[in-house]
Amino acid sequence: MATSGQERKDMAYRIITVSRQFGSGGRSIGKKLAERLGYEYYDKELVKQVSLATGFAPDYIEEKGEYAQSRSKWAYLFGGLGTAGVMNGMTPSDYLYTMQRKVILELAEKGNCVIVGRCSDYILREREDTLHAFIHAPIPYRTERIVRLYGESEQSPAKRIADKDGKRRVNYEHFTGRTWGAAENYDISLNAAAIGEDNCVELLYRVVTEE
Amino acid sequence: MATSGQERKDMAYRIITVSRQFGSGGRSIGKKLAERLGYEYYDKELVKQVSLATGFAPDYIEEKGEYAQSRSKWAYLFGGLGTAGVMNGMTPSDYLYTMQRKVILELAEKGNCVIVGRCSDYILREREDTLHAFIHAPIPYRTERIVRLYGESEQSPAKRIADKDGKRRVNYEHFTGRTWGAAENYDISLNAAAIGEDNCVELLYRVVTEE
Repeated sequence: MATSGQERKDMAYRIITVSRQFGSGGRSIGKKLAERLGYEYYDKELVKQVSLATGFAPDYIEEKGEYAQSRSKWAYLFGGLGTAGVMNGMTPSDYLYTMQRKVILELAEKGNCVIVGRCSDYILREREDTLHAFIHAPIPYRTERIVRLYGESEQSPAKRIADKDGKRRVNYEHFTGRTWGAAENYDISLNAAAIGEDNCVELLYRVVTEE
Repeated sequence: MATSGQERKDMAYRIITVSRQFGSGGRSIGKKLAERLGYEYYDKELVKQVSLATGFAPDYIEEKGEYAQSRSKWAYLFGGLGTAGVMNGMTPSDYLYTMQRKVILELAEKGNCVIVGRCSDYILREREDTLHAFIHAPIPYRTERIVRLYGESEQSPAKRIADKDGKRRVNYEHFTGRTWGAAENYDISLNAAAIGEDNCVELLYRVVTEE
């Protein structure tokens, strides 16, 4: 919700943004919450729309949409030469952020929905009808979970977590000027390991519907 | 709870630590939660016990217990001269922290309770039977609240908030090595303005009792 001085108690939230640490289960919680509420769930759909708007491939958007390396020389070179005009002199990551922002604002206008990641908490911060959630969990819980869900890879699970979270942090702080993972950015933050995934869905459902 | 990889679902939490931004209503939420649960509530009682253990005046403990200025020259001078022996060469703030820590560990052993502030989340981080909550709120909500509850003072409300939170932050980071207000330090963090004070109590009650 927006940072007003008033308590807000008299209607269900129309939009929920779910931000999350890598491997915490935030995406899964967001999806279950959308099903429980009968709200749209935007994740792949958002990628598709951004792809249509930008011409970038879905894979590129998935990879770069939350993990912009905005300070790489390559990005500046690419931004300055190959695509001048289309991207209006912006780096690809700045251009992608701008288009993602536009799509998120449009989706929020369309109707009730749950939006996962992509700085949606910041982009929709002024809307009174929006609840901002953050899901996190201790490293051992996330380690076990990512190996179970995504399998082993060359990188150790701990390294994958540090890498993904590090990139999300840089991306978030670059575009929002806020500290990633600070409780005060969100209306509710939950430790999925302590609370349990289904309990997180239940608690969020209660907060959204004011039950 | 401790940072284990397991979900924890099978018993009520015995201890709740409540950390909070100044003026957010965290203390009030902690007190109501303790009443609702029938748990002990430690705030003044904790100060009294620390006073008995240290000989420091209750007012001094209230003022310095969460707002240590551990780098002041005065503190080092005092630590090195006047009280050598009693404080074992520690600065008064380090000594106070050590004694507070001891009292908090003892109170946690005694029985079901809610403990507000004083790095209790960090001090009790290894206990599986402990839930860690953080209460925050946007500045306008806190401004209105502190003027209503504590009255006007020479300092503007915004200045009082910045001052108190700044000191809590320095104190917390000095003694714990963690970032103050980071969601991942807590099991549940709530925006008291968005959720509402009584709803915060209700949500915490449900999480504690697994209802």
